Amino acid sequence: MSLVRVHNFSISLDGFGAGEPQTEDTPMGHAGHRLHEWMTATHAWQHTGGSRGVDNLYTQDTDTGIGAEIMGAGKYGYPGWHDDADWTGWWGSNPPFHTPVFVLTHHPRPPLEMDGGTTFHFIDAAPAEALAAAREAAGDADVRIGGGATVIRDFMAAGLIDYLHAVVVPIVLGHGSRLWDGLEGQEADYQIESICSPSGVTHLTFTRRGL
Amino acid sequence: MSLVRVHNFSISLDGFGAGEPQTEDTPMGHAGHRLHEWMTATHAWQHTGGSRGVDNLYTQDTDTGIGAEIMGAGKYGYPGWHDDADWTGWWGSNPPFHTPVFVLTHHPRPPLEMDGGTTFHFIDAAPAEALAAAREAAGDADVRIGGGATVIRDFMAAGLIDYLHAVVVPIVLGHGSRLWDGLEGQEADYQIESICSPSGVTHLTFTRRGL
Repeated sequence: MSLVRVHNFSISLDGFGAGEPQTEDTPMGHAGHRLHEWMTATHAWQHTGGSRGVDNLYTQDTDTGIGAEIMGAGKYGYPGWHDDADWTGWWGSNPPFHTPVFVLTHHPRPPLEMDGGTTFHFIDAAPAEALAAAREAAGDADVRIGGGATVIRDFMAAGLIDYLHAVVVPIVLGHGSRLWDGLEGQEADYQIESICSPSGVTHLTFTRRGL
Repeated sequence: MSLVRVHNFSISLDGFGAGEPQTEDTPMGHAGHRLHEWMTATHAWQHTGGSRGVDNLYTQDTDTGIGAEIMGAGKYGYPGWHDDADWTGWWGSNPPFHTPVFVLTHHPRPPLEMDGGTTFHFIDAAPAEALAAAREAAGDADVRIGGGATVIRDFMAAGLIDYLHAVVVPIVLGHGSRLWDGLEGQEADYQIESICSPSGVTHLTFTRRGL
């Protein structure tokens, strides 16, 4: 069975995966770039130069063996994008996914084929149903849950996540979108590892027991 | 100037420093012993045997150079202890502080001298005022803020903490008493280090810049 994986999901010390408000100009709200500086500093992100330590290992593992992604409406666009017929996501004509991507939205629209192998599918579906569609599209490969926090939380609460890589960044955001709410006791099903990077972030992995 | 320090303050991944409800039988609420197993497993705690790695280093640093402690009413006793004239804390006749201890309470009572050098002083005071009293009692030595979460948060928000050692335990508690609420942006004043222990916890230290 293919796995359901979360990668590089960065959170503040107080557990927020994004700040607020999210707008077209501020996709991460008041968090700005602070949650992802550890990642954009890596060689895997920069291609020329960049850090080649443990942060890079985690970053380059993001796409390995992934055949489809599921993301929330808030990752695909700013609030209200569904009223904008021309909106095709934040990533330009060649998005970095290169697989089918299932966007969870209450406003489905026809599939959107982009350059480079990415096709966005817009579905209004519960986690298990969305996962079934993504698994079929992924074939033997794994499915990545791309976030945001609410989507990861919903899949985790439904028992559908096999591997969760979260990255704790030492800032206190105070408000935004929380990762851990509603997940009391979920750690019992996972083997957990914490790896502190010299960059200051802590890589936290939850791996389902018995995998 | 002597320092104001927090040691071994253990929190869950979602930032709770204690569970709930707190009662005479369950001082940590539904968290039970889970937040402190890393500490009670150390040589510094057990005296005979126990782990001698990085968890032990942090544990044995707790009392070094400390001349007084400030604690909240919820660390001193169960809710309602102030109606119990015989309550002398959780720790028996010889509490582990061996210094003056200032208990923040809206129900002051006369000082209580215990064996081994601990004297409890019960004061109804704001953070700065309590700290002035504790500093005077501590002489040249440092003052420890003993918790719980609310007290640490109040002192941190007032800019009074020089060194904060928090320990992130990989469990999700879901509810209880949160450490980080109201502290947005406080990290800017501190140098922060994360040290992952083989025991699974992460030691997080905030050291005021320029100390």
